[in-house]
Amino acid sequence: LPLVARRQISVFGAGVPTPRELELAEEVGRLLAEAGVTVVTGGLSGVMEAASRGAAEAGGTVLAILPGEDPHGANRYATVVAATGTGHARNLAVAASGDAGIAIGHGWGTLSEIGLARKIGRPVVVLVGPDIEGLHRAETAEQAVRLARLLSD
Amino acid sequence: LPLVARRQISVFGAGVPTPRELELAEEVGRLLAEAGVTVVTGGLSGVMEAASRGAAEAGGTVLAILPGEDPHGANRYATVVAATGTGHARNLAVAASGDAGIAIGHGWGTLSEIGLARKIGRPVVVLVGPDIEGLHRAETAEQAVRLARLLSD
Amino acid sequence: LPLVARRQISVFGAGVPTPRELELAEEVGRLLAEAGVTVVTGGLSGVMEAASRGAAEAGGTVLAILPGEDPHGANRYATVVAATGTGHARNLAVAASGDAGIAIGHGWGTLSEIGLARKIGRPVVVLVGPDIEGLHRAETAEQAVRLARLLSD
Amino acid sequence: LPLVARRQISVFGAGVPTPRELELAEEVGRLLAEAGVTVVTGGLSGVMEAASRGAAEAGGTVLAILPGEDPHGANRYATVVAATGTGHARNLAVAASGDAGIAIGHGWGTLSEIGLARKIGRPVVVLVGPDIEGLHRAETAEQAVRLARLLSD
Repeated sequence: LPLVARRQISVFGAGVPTPRELELAEEVGRLLAEAGVTVVTGGLSGVMEAASRGAAEAGGTVLAILPGEDPHGANRYATVVAATGTGHARNLAVAASGDAGIAIGHGWGTLSEIGLARKIGRPVVVLVGPDIEGLHRAETAEQAVRLARLLSD
Repeated sequence: LPLVARRQISVFGAGVPTPRELELAEEVGRLLAEAGVTVVTGGLSGVMEAASRGAAEAGGTVLAILPGEDPHGANRYATVVAATGTGHARNLAVAASGDAGIAIGHGWGTLSEIGLARKIGRPVVVLVGPDIEGLHRAETAEQAVRLARLLSD
Repeated sequence: LPLVARRQISVFGAGVPTPRELELAEEVGRLLAEAGVTVVTGGLSGVMEAASRGAAEAGGTVLAILPGEDPHGANRYATVVAATGTGHARNLAVAASGDAGIAIGHGWGTLSEIGLARKIGRPVVVLVGPDIEGLHRAETAEQAVRLARLLSD
Repeated sequence: LPLVARRQISVFGAGVPTPRELELAEEVGRLLAEAGVTVVTGGLSGVMEAASRGAAEAGGTVLAILPGEDPHGANRYATVVAATGTGHARNLAVAASGDAGIAIGHGWGTLSEIGLARKIGRPVVVLVGPDIEGLHRAETAEQAVRLARLLSD
């Protein structure tokens, strides 16, 4: 029974998002799960929770990578939890664990995840967020997921 | 569909183990998976791979927490991968992500995982390893798994 | 002999900068040292080395916070070295160790340091870099140092 | 002005030590500083503070590597502060930043620092602590400092 590594895609976003961002995050999570992709997030509230809910409700695998030491600190939609204990340095783990990243938000944490992901060569698709050269842009959740899957092949 | 957080138990052990340690690790992985527990390891070779194989072949969920930045660097039995990018500091994440830890080996990495796990209050069961006050001991894989499950309730 | 904690200010910037960025970095380092401020950098080449050289040649204290495990991997102008062993997660340490940050460059690593610094509430002065709301801007090295010192009081 | 990297030696030890451990730590700090060695510690109380005090009062350089994000969280004897923000993962940085380590204590954090230091090849001298193969032992502060300096050449 040799296992085949599943594709993993990370979703970056703020803990205190707008309603539009939440909606997009949930749809992104659902679409990734329907495509058989494991969804990676920072494991807390807001965009992280919405993407996780979308994925979990579609039967997907959801990896929460937490800043704290308590694996029970993840939102309820995580199916597997990595409690790093390294604070905001877990943003590097969120960025690295995805074959690509999808950004939904304008927060400083999201910006750091974009920077770290690009620093280590991960493609990043921005659905909502900063307009910086070297990032891909998408207008809809469907476009973002299609592009992120393509870029992580 | 509110999900219930699954129990997670970590297995600590060396990349270059003895045959006896490999055998124990594989059995520990299998027994944890059969009990519905997600197995957490450092994601590389040796004890980490043997425990992962035991769990994966029993249909379990296996979380590899890697030191490097490449999620494809895990052994083939990982079903979900956290690539921390933080080197040996990932030992803290391996220790923290389990509700308890099972140690199989005498290596320095294993010792650091035991120290970090106890520092943050995780119970540790030693199947093979140092004889230090404050650690639980088990003689068989079955005993280790039973004890670790009990201690992480 | 109760010691008084010295002010520390971090300089963020790329390993492969432009000549103009190098010149600014060296001047920033010198001015910080002359003001009695300890200069914190990522400890490698480019902007990090230029700022360190400017500070060290002015007799200042220079803390290199390295991604690797080898304290001898810092540039030659570091007077004290923290070898974190945590890869790009050391960007968080560079950001946190300064009472304020000065950014000189457009790289992804610099962007991640800006994001992490702001996430934990550090003021950031941009001398060369992205134009994002919530960051302070300066036109000259002198202005940047004056502003960073003011903001970190 | 090409600088010569100064020797750095780390002191591992508990936040809540015995009086004997405090005395040894202060003497170790003093002797290291008198030998021109920069003292590296975890930056908090107990053994960390005593070693720092010994070194600072002898006019030495003392690097505090903190778990938290606040550089002002170090004990008052630190002359330079790295605030890692990575919790107990800073133990890796404490271990890596010294050319050798001196352990004074039986705590779990100390044990993890010993394990991490040995994992990355640093020699460790135990003044007070576990009796494990692969570690050097010393009976007095003077012996520990002499041995650690010799081993880090």
